[in-house]
Amino acid sequence: MNNFTFQCPTKIIFGRGTEDQAARELKPYGNKVLLHYGGGSIKKSGLYSKVVKSLKDEDFEIFELSGVKPNPRLSMVYEGIKLCREKNIDCILAVGGGSVIDSAKAIAVGVPYNGDVWDFFIGKAMPEAVIPLGVILTLPATGSEASNSCVITNEDGWYKRGLNIDLIRPKFSILNPELTYTLPPFQTACGVADIMAHVMERYFTNTPHVELTDRLCEATLRTVIKNTPVVMENPRDYDARAEIMWAGTIAHNGLLGTGRQEDWTSHKIEHELSGIYDIAHGAGLAVVFPAWMKYVYKINVNRFVQYAKKVWDVETNLSDPEATALEGIKRLEQFFKSIGLPTTLKELDIPSDRFEEMAQKCVKFTPIGGLKRMTSEDIVNILNLAK
Amino acid sequence: MNNFTFQCPTKIIFGRGTEDQAARELKPYGNKVLLHYGGGSIKKSGLYSKVVKSLKDEDFEIFELSGVKPNPRLSMVYEGIKLCREKNIDCILAVGGGSVIDSAKAIAVGVPYNGDVWDFFIGKAMPEAVIPLGVILTLPATGSEASNSCVITNEDGWYKRGLNIDLIRPKFSILNPELTYTLPPFQTACGVADIMAHVMERYFTNTPHVELTDRLCEATLRTVIKNTPVVMENPRDYDARAEIMWAGTIAHNGLLGTGRQEDWTSHKIEHELSGIYDIAHGAGLAVVFPAWMKYVYKINVNRFVQYAKKVWDVETNLSDPEATALEGIKRLEQFFKSIGLPTTLKELDIPSDRFEEMAQKCVKFTPIGGLKRMTSEDIVNILNLAK
Repeated sequence: MNNFTFQCPTKIIFGRGTEDQAARELKPYGNKVLLHYGGGSIKKSGLYSKVVKSLKDEDFEIFELSGVKPNPRLSMVYEGIKLCREKNIDCILAVGGGSVIDSAKAIAVGVPYNGDVWDFFIGKAMPEAVIPLGVILTLPATGSEASNSCVITNEDGWYKRGLNIDLIRPKFSILNPELTYTLPPFQTACGVADIMAHVMERYFTNTPHVELTDRLCEATLRTVIKNTPVVMENPRDYDARAEIMWAGTIAHNGLLGTGRQEDWTSHKIEHELSGIYDIAHGAGLAVVFPAWMKYVYKINVNRFVQYAKKVWDVETNLSDPEATALEGIKRLEQFFKSIGLPTTLKELDIPSDRFEEMAQKCVKFTPIGGLKRMTSEDIVNILNLAK
Repeated sequence: MNNFTFQCPTKIIFGRGTEDQAARELKPYGNKVLLHYGGGSIKKSGLYSKVVKSLKDEDFEIFELSGVKPNPRLSMVYEGIKLCREKNIDCILAVGGGSVIDSAKAIAVGVPYNGDVWDFFIGKAMPEAVIPLGVILTLPATGSEASNSCVITNEDGWYKRGLNIDLIRPKFSILNPELTYTLPPFQTACGVADIMAHVMERYFTNTPHVELTDRLCEATLRTVIKNTPVVMENPRDYDARAEIMWAGTIAHNGLLGTGRQEDWTSHKIEHELSGIYDIAHGAGLAVVFPAWMKYVYKINVNRFVQYAKKVWDVETNLSDPEATALEGIKRLEQFFKSIGLPTTLKELDIPSDRFEEMAQKCVKFTPIGGLKRMTSEDIVNILNLAK
């Protein structure tokens, strides 16, 4: 086990009807709030009017910034920063999924910073202050509701880049599984792929003696795998929605990566794909992750055997560990297919003509990989395996 | 899954050599520190002089309060509160195991309170302020390093009572597994029993649909069960010590109890035993827990079958679930015995003459039990099963 520091102070408020508590939780931070959200879905569901009412009941002055898109854009972050400064806004309430939360996080670090907020995403500067952020989560997927990360797409060159720092964890996040009843099956499935990727990018490591976190990772994966078909069958199954929602937070609050080297290659490759082609992040992951696994499993075949056995109940073939490892990868692909996700680039209509460009961008700012350090050639190879 | 709120902001600093960071972590809170510890073991190990040096290097004025006993006493808490007030002490550094940390927590809430700190332990008042507390952990057991609980013994009547409130979580806790190398085997084993009890008192619940936390509990228990024989054999096995130490924190920081009713009967009964007989808490738990299990397993036999299967790999006897459940309980007893713990009151030289008195005290201030609500008669029955 490696030395580590872990701190996740985000307050989780979980369960039925909990969205009513947002205004009260924000109260200590001021009385001018930026309400940040995506499209019309929260209006259609009635969540918008509930939230506005509870904010007004607590005497908040509300400023709205809506229209956050999947793969949230830097231009809207700039807009949010400008609005917060002009109106002296005290705090942000993000109502939505990972895109809305990430956009809100970027605004939150951008407001007190004198330079260009994009500096934080290309390693040119590190944030030192933030305005307080609360969350009402409507889509379990990115884990952004309690994570220290935030991913923004810069339209100028379509760079999709992340920022990781404890400072940007939300003050509180409200998780009501009922709010996820109306998610379309494809979005639910994409969320599941993202949750599983967050766990697996921590699980596949060369760090020895990480038993507790191995077991916790397997526990989280198994819970998600078991409950996903239940919600695909019955989107209003509270208990299964709740398991997936809480798993989504645990998957990415940092606990499962304590004491181990992680490997975020698949996420990084997917960011290039969705940066250019604007595909759903989870769909991209369902394509890239198995390809990455096939490319690297021989480096630590025992770990892939353990994964096959402990996550997918594959019987170990002692005379052929590689076959066992491959069977584990196959089960993952089958699972993704079974919940309606693509597992090839072809299904996403992504041609091979820009593989080289994406590979170059992928390794441009920071080195990537853990289990295996990646060159741009490796990335092209993985993309070819994903065709 | 029940609605819940969960927040554990304690910063965990884990690994080799991390004790050097304590002074720097305390720095933001002031320059007068109460150094709180137990007996001479931290002096013998050299930890004391390392810590004092690093505090002096950061210009701290150090006030010492040592001599904390197992089952920490209210009288010393009073002493600590008096000292902190007289010297205008800014913060506390607890160096030791659960007793030292709990004593420090009680001092920390006592200092800003005008009344008697014991009020908090009998439900007469709730704390509203605290002075900051940092921890260097030397014994993985109570989980107090990140928990919201604290247990103190009032010598006037030998009442052992707990306080549970998020406010008392330490600001940071330093966990270096190397500091546990010198723990005697019996103390290591007692710590393990305490860790396992913290998980099991959350695991045995009637709350339906708690799959994620079930799996996380099983993961934690299995890790502890696997690594304990390793450290009994080789006390200087860093990796096994690390697994147990991190599991001890996870077991009791609240995560594993999210969304479920818990049942703290065994801990409560043990508090009566160690309150009167001053036995090691973990040894008392090793005796009480299996007895409690035998008394209640029929109430939710499926859960005890799941425990036998998922924690101890007991093969399910479909025609006789009760036999499977009992086999799980037997495995736990065997495990405790194998690491040198008692499993009967007789081994602790505790006679039956005060069972009734303990049972009365146990239910005196607050109702106890979750899986089954306990009367004083139930407590006597459990103690009889533990004879």
